[in-house]
Amino acid sequence: MSDIKLINVKESILTDNDNDALFLREKLEKENVFMLNIMSSPGAGKTSLIIATLKTLQDKYRIGVIEGDIDSMVDSEKIVQNGGHAVQINTGGDCHLDSFMIKSAIDTMDLDNYDVIIIENIGNLVCPAEFDTGANLNVMILSVPEGDDKILKYPLMFQVCDVLIINKIDCVKMFDFNFDALMNRAALVNPKMKIFQVSAKTGEGIEAWCDWLSEKITV
Amino acid sequence: MSDIKLINVKESILTDNDNDALFLREKLEKENVFMLNIMSSPGAGKTSLIIATLKTLQDKYRIGVIEGDIDSMVDSEKIVQNGGHAVQINTGGDCHLDSFMIKSAIDTMDLDNYDVIIIENIGNLVCPAEFDTGANLNVMILSVPEGDDKILKYPLMFQVCDVLIINKIDCVKMFDFNFDALMNRAALVNPKMKIFQVSAKTGEGIEAWCDWLSEKITV
Repeated sequence: MSDIKLINVKESILTDNDNDALFLREKLEKENVFMLNIMSSPGAGKTSLIIATLKTLQDKYRIGVIEGDIDSMVDSEKIVQNGGHAVQINTGGDCHLDSFMIKSAIDTMDLDNYDVIIIENIGNLVCPAEFDTGANLNVMILSVPEGDDKILKYPLMFQVCDVLIINKIDCVKMFDFNFDALMNRAALVNPKMKIFQVSAKTGEGIEAWCDWLSEKITV
Repeated sequence: MSDIKLINVKESILTDNDNDALFLREKLEKENVFMLNIMSSPGAGKTSLIIATLKTLQDKYRIGVIEGDIDSMVDSEKIVQNGGHAVQINTGGDCHLDSFMIKSAIDTMDLDNYDVIIIENIGNLVCPAEFDTGANLNVMILSVPEGDDKILKYPLMFQVCDVLIINKIDCVKMFDFNFDALMNRAALVNPKMKIFQVSAKTGEGIEAWCDWLSEKITV
């Protein structure tokens, strides 16, 4: 027997998180609530996409938003200004949301009042990919100004997502963004990933995304 | 005495990192090498700014680049294609560079051949802010498409940086970016932070940044 005692903190944290996420997903299923988790770099347009989605689907579903930020209530305020309901999580430094934080937020919500919960994760292409939030659908936004090579650099994020939304396509002429190169890379890393091109600003592509999402919402 | 043994992993990791960073800074000072650490969101323009800086200062200084990525050699290849020297660190999942990784990279370099080392950190506004790399100067890039509200959401990153470079100013008309709001927020969070407006793509503002950087390089 070795004299060295190994404490693998990260593995233990991730296992605990996965177990909590599983329970949360089962709980939401029983309550007939569908949850999606939106991830991206800072400033790729998570809040704008959520507002566009709220406006398109608000007559069909009762939607709640869980806003994750290191600090500030900026995004929650925007959601409320646009007629939505928001619960703000401030992580105080943590770079991702985990299933315990989501459960804490959901515990403050009366689930009888919601069909859909949208999580806006911390703006980060690394750590959020490792933590199952308990959502039914993982969505990532890549904005055109970030470039078409992000799959090569942050592969896990693109692997764990069911949907890739390419945002800010209204300004594609300003940037050197190769859609074919991106599609080829996506096909290699995650061939099942559904891809949409949208502009949350102009509304282009939002209907196609919302139509597809409506088919997935099984409540 | 309590029966509970608390293992504060994060605090211990950060203390070890700070000690390593201190030693590294002293070592580089003795070797007359100045090091800067460039941080930003994914796709804000770290590699483009480094290439523009290399081209402007290559006749004045011998510059080496340490490229940090989760995966891939894409950025190192770009640096080499543009006549630079690069050492690639692939973290394999870690969301930031730390002083141990930087020391490992520097150990592969003959410091007699360099005046300046530029670190390109992982694209992430959260975790890299917590880890001193041993650099003399912390630089962050905020690109116009990300928006003017990032200081509110990722305050630590803006607090630890000596310089804020606002990149992609050539496409400011396409985005709702309020420079005055940003300046006011920056003055509250980090009044000593030097701010430049540049376009690494068109070259606008690069000379002013490089002139200022030359004054800081004390080798």
